[in-house]
Amino acid sequence: MSETGKIAFLGLGAMGFGMATNLLSNKLQVTGFDVWPPTLEKFVAAGGSSSSTPREAVKSAPYVVFMVATAAQILSALFDPETGAIETLEQGATLILCSTGPPEHSPNVRKLLDEKNRTDVKVIDAPVSGGTIRAANGTLTILASGNEEDIAGARKVLDVMAGPNLYLIPGGLGAGTKVKMVHQVLAGIHIVMSSEAMGFAAKLGLDTRKAYEVLKKGEGMSWMFENRGPHMIVPDEKVYSALGIIVKDIGIVTAASRRTTSNPGFPLFLSSATEQVLAAGISAGYDRLDDAQLTRVYLPSTPSLVLDLASQDASCTDFTPEETSKLKLVESTMKAVHLVSAMEAMSLGKTVGLETNQLFEIIKGAAGSSWMFADRTPQLLSGKWTSKETVNDTIDSLTTAITEANALKYPLHLAAITLQILQLASLKGYGDEPDLAVSRVWDRETSLYPGKRV
Amino acid sequence: MSETGKIAFLGLGAMGFGMATNLLSNKLQVTGFDVWPPTLEKFVAAGGSSSSTPREAVKSAPYVVFMVATAAQILSALFDPETGAIETLEQGATLILCSTGPPEHSPNVRKLLDEKNRTDVKVIDAPVSGGTIRAANGTLTILASGNEEDIAGARKVLDVMAGPNLYLIPGGLGAGTKVKMVHQVLAGIHIVMSSEAMGFAAKLGLDTRKAYEVLKKGEGMSWMFENRGPHMIVPDEKVYSALGIIVKDIGIVTAASRRTTSNPGFPLFLSSATEQVLAAGISAGYDRLDDAQLTRVYLPSTPSLVLDLASQDASCTDFTPEETSKLKLVESTMKAVHLVSAMEAMSLGKTVGLETNQLFEIIKGAAGSSWMFADRTPQLLSGKWTSKETVNDTIDSLTTAITEANALKYPLHLAAITLQILQLASLKGYGDEPDLAVSRVWDRETSLYPGKRV
Repeated sequence: MSETGKIAFLGLGAMGFGMATNLLSNKLQVTGFDVWPPTLEKFVAAGGSSSSTPREAVKSAPYVVFMVATAAQILSALFDPETGAIETLEQGATLILCSTGPPEHSPNVRKLLDEKNRTDVKVIDAPVSGGTIRAANGTLTILASGNEEDIAGARKVLDVMAGPNLYLIPGGLGAGTKVKMVHQVLAGIHIVMSSEAMGFAAKLGLDTRKAYEVLKKGEGMSWMFENRGPHMIVPDEKVYSALGIIVKDIGIVTAASRRTTSNPGFPLFLSSATEQVLAAGISAGYDRLDDAQLTRVYLPSTPSLVLDLASQDASCTDFTPEETSKLKLVESTMKAVHLVSAMEAMSLGKTVGLETNQLFEIIKGAAGSSWMFADRTPQLLSGKWTSKETVNDTIDSLTTAITEANALKYPLHLAAITLQILQLASLKGYGDEPDLAVSRVWDRETSLYPGKRV
Repeated sequence: MSETGKIAFLGLGAMGFGMATNLLSNKLQVTGFDVWPPTLEKFVAAGGSSSSTPREAVKSAPYVVFMVATAAQILSALFDPETGAIETLEQGATLILCSTGPPEHSPNVRKLLDEKNRTDVKVIDAPVSGGTIRAANGTLTILASGNEEDIAGARKVLDVMAGPNLYLIPGGLGAGTKVKMVHQVLAGIHIVMSSEAMGFAAKLGLDTRKAYEVLKKGEGMSWMFENRGPHMIVPDEKVYSALGIIVKDIGIVTAASRRTTSNPGFPLFLSSATEQVLAAGISAGYDRLDDAQLTRVYLPSTPSLVLDLASQDASCTDFTPEETSKLKLVESTMKAVHLVSAMEAMSLGKTVGLETNQLFEIIKGAAGSSWMFADRTPQLLSGKWTSKETVNDTIDSLTTAITEANALKYPLHLAAITLQILQLASLKGYGDEPDLAVSRVWDRETSLYPGKRV
């Protein structure tokens, strides 16, 4: 028997299987459950045990990791009258909820357990990110929140899954999911913006490979752009991350931002526009394609244009002066969208009560980052606005780009809404302030982030 | 010789030909010019004279009507070094500029004439609307602005073209075009919203003919919906108004709203989102289709769904209770979008200095109207906000609709941005105010439209 005792692992999908086998590699004893029998057989072959129901799997397990697909599946795994784990949960067991759900999900699980007189059971909100490779080698980012003692008691398990990438998020149960949600705002916007930008470069007639090489090193860069760009410019049928996944993730964010009894409804202009572009992609039948294929939504009558215009000679990134000025148009849309996405996300983070310095550090090191996010957010948080570019400067450069795109009848869904938000900030009197004054759009009576030019 | 003297008519397209022949029918003497010779021959056959250049056409004409396609063509007709009218313009001639251009166009013509020492020539800004039938029978809507004496001197010509539909717009040269521009905001948004709504009805599985019949009588109704709906639900290849036309018209609006030296840039969220949906339609190759075919943009993998679900039995509009509740979802998106489009348009109108009561009356009787516009705008203008529905009520019903659309992965481009604007108004503290308090989003320091609940 290992030092943690038995771990029950529910949900052995692409991520879950890697996480569970990594626990085995660390000499922990794991009993897996999944609805798909071949996966269970594979898990047994890898040295694990298996059970055919959650109720069976959790017997005698002090730790239960939930990595099923949805919050609804967690509830079913716990409370299903025939197979639910509630009947056999070990006294004092710790439930580690790694599936992505809405922020209210883990507090809801806590409440349901209490109602069934299982106050002894501990609940940890522990959403993960980082992909299958990091799942399998135990370096996933985990955003853990809940009772501090409960988390301390589960560190042995959490550390094996996350290594150095375990974050303890203050704010109680659900706070970890809120951080993930804010991160998702940025990740989702930047995925769509990567396609919007590369489609624009193609529509302008630029060599898209060269454009990618230059843009990824500039101020319009985002982690997502750097990551997704290569999948747009080389022929590649592989699905790295299906469009349907980001649709699900961003849907959780926008649903959470809508008005509910506990939530007054928070305006997320770019997230919402992103969601509609994604819905257009799903409507067009692309849900199983890689999300880098969203360029098709932007270029429906020439869906392979981004690929067609990519030269394959990686040695040269020289542009003529005319091409360089076209590339500047693309970059200015990226910079402006990333500026406003950073302000939208950080405003949401503040509104849901997160510790914003930690929020910044986590996102900066993750897939939701961008050059603009990394540069402007510290100014937002410190209140020392040192950006030399004003709101009106950004409006000017973005206007030039949008005018050109309109002449080409190329839809700039995210850049166009970004311009309206900036113009609203200008209308409210912040036009000559540093560009991050656009954050004022989300201000309540008392500023979310007071700040001044220094 | 008729009482007006000779009229030169430049630009005999579909609208211009009807207007010019209507002048002939009223026993006026008209010399036509067009770049397309067969049109000129047809015009001569109808009793007119013809000229092969603007310079030739305007000789001895006290009135010159410009109905060419663009503002650039007006400049060319006037100032082209070889063929421009400037050399032969009658002393004291009146130029009636009916082509749609940007608001600064007619003041610009005035300035160029002055620079060429032709201060004797009079300029009237006189954009038209109403379509080819009203062009031919002399009942076009004409929005005339400029020097009052100049307009009075041209009444004989204007009255023959407009009959009872001539409006004199205060505010100087260009004011007429500004009114047309504000109208265009509404017309453009409502055209796209008609497709968004009918596509949503189809996606919800409703009989689209029945849905149309019910919706056009309800609070979600718009003039455009009533007009375009029939073209969506009966098989009809005819192009009543090509997508490319509304794209051009709304492009003039959004371009004018962008930041220029004379214009600080005004946020037009719905107009901008509309423009991007239209650009997506153009990108998909639909520019020569009727604009009622925009449903294809919303339903790319089932482009004929709206038509397919239309029963052809016009006698029955009964819905089951379940269908009625689905229809309510569609209607709530229309109501909310039309509320916010009304506030966006009237805010623009105020900002560009128009007399808002007249603006309301003109739009109310024209193609940009909607039930919500007609009901809420008088409350906005009087400052007596009597609407019983609050901003938060609208958010609630719209949230329900958008949640359902998201579940169906149906993109609600306009409704989604509308929700964000409403949520922003709620964030700023207007959630419990009557719904038209969403107009506060466009407020400057001093309210555009002060108002209170009564």
